[in-house]
Amino acid sequence: MFQRIDHVGIACQNLEEKIAFYESTFGLTVVSREINEAQGVREAMLHVADGVGGASYVQLLEPLHPETAVGKFIAKRGEGIHHIGYGVADVAKALEEIGARGVRLIDERPRHGSMGASIAFLHPKDVGGVLTELVETSGR
Amino acid sequence: MFQRIDHVGIACQNLEEKIAFYESTFGLTVVSREINEAQGVREAMLHVADGVGGASYVQLLEPLHPETAVGKFIAKRGEGIHHIGYGVADVAKALEEIGARGVRLIDERPRHGSMGASIAFLHPKDVGGVLTELVETSGR
Repeated sequence: MFQRIDHVGIACQNLEEKIAFYESTFGLTVVSREINEAQGVREAMLHVADGVGGASYVQLLEPLHPETAVGKFIAKRGEGIHHIGYGVADVAKALEEIGARGVRLIDERPRHGSMGASIAFLHPKDVGGVLTELVETSGR
Repeated sequence: MFQRIDHVGIACQNLEEKIAFYESTFGLTVVSREINEAQGVREAMLHVADGVGGASYVQLLEPLHPETAVGKFIAKRGEGIHHIGYGVADVAKALEEIGARGVRLIDERPRHGSMGASIAFLHPKDVGGVLTELVETSGR
């Protein structure tokens, strides 16, 4: 079902500072910057590697304000790893299969993610505390 | 510097239960089980994907007892994502470069990791709260 680790989502207080850190310290390159109002984040995708099933990224997430999901995450736990996103061929089909196995879905239907992807989140309580995202890319 | 996302390390209370979940729900396959006394964990590597720079895994980690690093992590924050491991060609060289850029190193020298890899951890306080591991594989 999973084609790759599409990305690891990292919550941070200051997106531009963290981008500069990842670029200068680890040599990663920003390939996309977006504001996602629905998710309440300003974000950047930094390319790590290409793979058979698609590329892998570090996704840096800055909350648009403290009352967003990522804002609350940082207030409670501090900056750090927020979620993991796995690449799938068909997010709607994967949601159906995973839901049928008893995992609660945050998103019953796919919604808009980074760089034109269709995405959906699974409930972390049913995945051992791991906020898990499914990502179907649009040929990126 | 980074060749791939080598793995995402996930802390759990019961390794065998979590392996069964990842196998049955997401179709992942265990490729290695180990006990690492030095790190105080019982662990499993589940294969996600192959890539140009090497494969990617989910690493499930069960603490050997509550006073280990992973045991304390779970006591404080609950089960969930513990760290991210990036593949590098030469972990000693990467440590030197990253240390020279002002990031504190948990491991000044590489040590033994999963499946015969040489690994080293960077201090999360200098990586925006992200426990970051460098992984040099032994041709796995």
